[in-house]
Amino acid sequence: MKLLKDRILQDGTVEEDILKVGSFLNHQIDVKLLNEIGKEFKERFKDKKVDKILTIETSGIAIAVIAAQYFHVPVVFARKTESKTMDKDLYESTVYSYTKEKNYTIKVSKKFLNEGENVLLIDDFLARGRAIEGLIDILKQANVNLVGVGIVIEKGFQEGGKVLRDKGILIESLAIIDKPVDGKIKFM
Amino acid sequence: MKLLKDRILQDGTVEEDILKVGSFLNHQIDVKLLNEIGKEFKERFKDKKVDKILTIETSGIAIAVIAAQYFHVPVVFARKTESKTMDKDLYESTVYSYTKEKNYTIKVSKKFLNEGENVLLIDDFLARGRAIEGLIDILKQANVNLVGVGIVIEKGFQEGGKVLRDKGILIESLAIIDKPVDGKIKFM
Repeated sequence: MKLLKDRILQDGTVEEDILKVGSFLNHQIDVKLLNEIGKEFKERFKDKKVDKILTIETSGIAIAVIAAQYFHVPVVFARKTESKTMDKDLYESTVYSYTKEKNYTIKVSKKFLNEGENVLLIDDFLARGRAIEGLIDILKQANVNLVGVGIVIEKGFQEGGKVLRDKGILIESLAIIDKPVDGKIKFM
Repeated sequence: MKLLKDRILQDGTVEEDILKVGSFLNHQIDVKLLNEIGKEFKERFKDKKVDKILTIETSGIAIAVIAAQYFHVPVVFARKTESKTMDKDLYESTVYSYTKEKNYTIKVSKKFLNEGENVLLIDDFLARGRAIEGLIDILKQANVNLVGVGIVIEKGFQEGGKVLRDKGILIESLAIIDKPVDGKIKFM
């Protein structure tokens, strides 16, 4: 997606080999850009039946709700944190976060995933793929059909995309980046 | 806001005196309803200059980004958790969460709040007002103007709304609920 790639080159920064897109995607959010991203996801999954979008807090939420406007479906986000306001009857999966360097449990209320539904996963980044694998584990527990996975930025130099595609999962990444060299971003 | 109040009565549940709206607002998200909420916030703040919307993870994000489409401004969300991808140069404030029963630090990158900007705060709930006070503290550190506060559901039986209004802050709450009695929700 050219608009996104241009924006990554213009406003993305690389620090200690990590691409930072906090100025438009995951801290400050450019809602206009998100609308174009949402339209692009709809275009890429236009032949698929999508009943619901599932994402994961925090950075996936903004992308998923804007995209959902083009799919005309509700969004559910998996929670990482405990909350008194949450149901006790949950699907859970354990995920290792490399950016946070710890395991965490993701949780979705059983009420909001219905057997036989067609669910599209959306997230901001795909790197080693652990968060997406956790979400897929939850979909399996719920007997829900996985339509595919929409990713804004895939780190093509890490294994997540390959591992998931090798399992036959449809992954649509709007930008696939190579490992930054000397702080420079290149697309694959 | 009638549509919202009707939805709270229809789909909200009360457990141990806590109103739960996870089926449409803060776990599963009804994006159509959020659009009506966004329009209503724009209507309530139509005479105000708004340059940016600030919210707080997690539940504020979806509401803020959908509302931002009607204000044509970017969104920034305060983070509660550490992340390697976040800047080191931050505004911070400490907030006590009654639902989670602990203090946490909220953080906003200094880059994304510019002196003299007019910022609207948006969040899902207002109860004791600690999260909003933390956000206001951050706005003060950044020398940013507080336009007002847009809240989806205010717990009118807790002190947050009164404390903030007594300070002269403009609070627009789309539904103000009274303390649930026998599991029943009443509006004030």
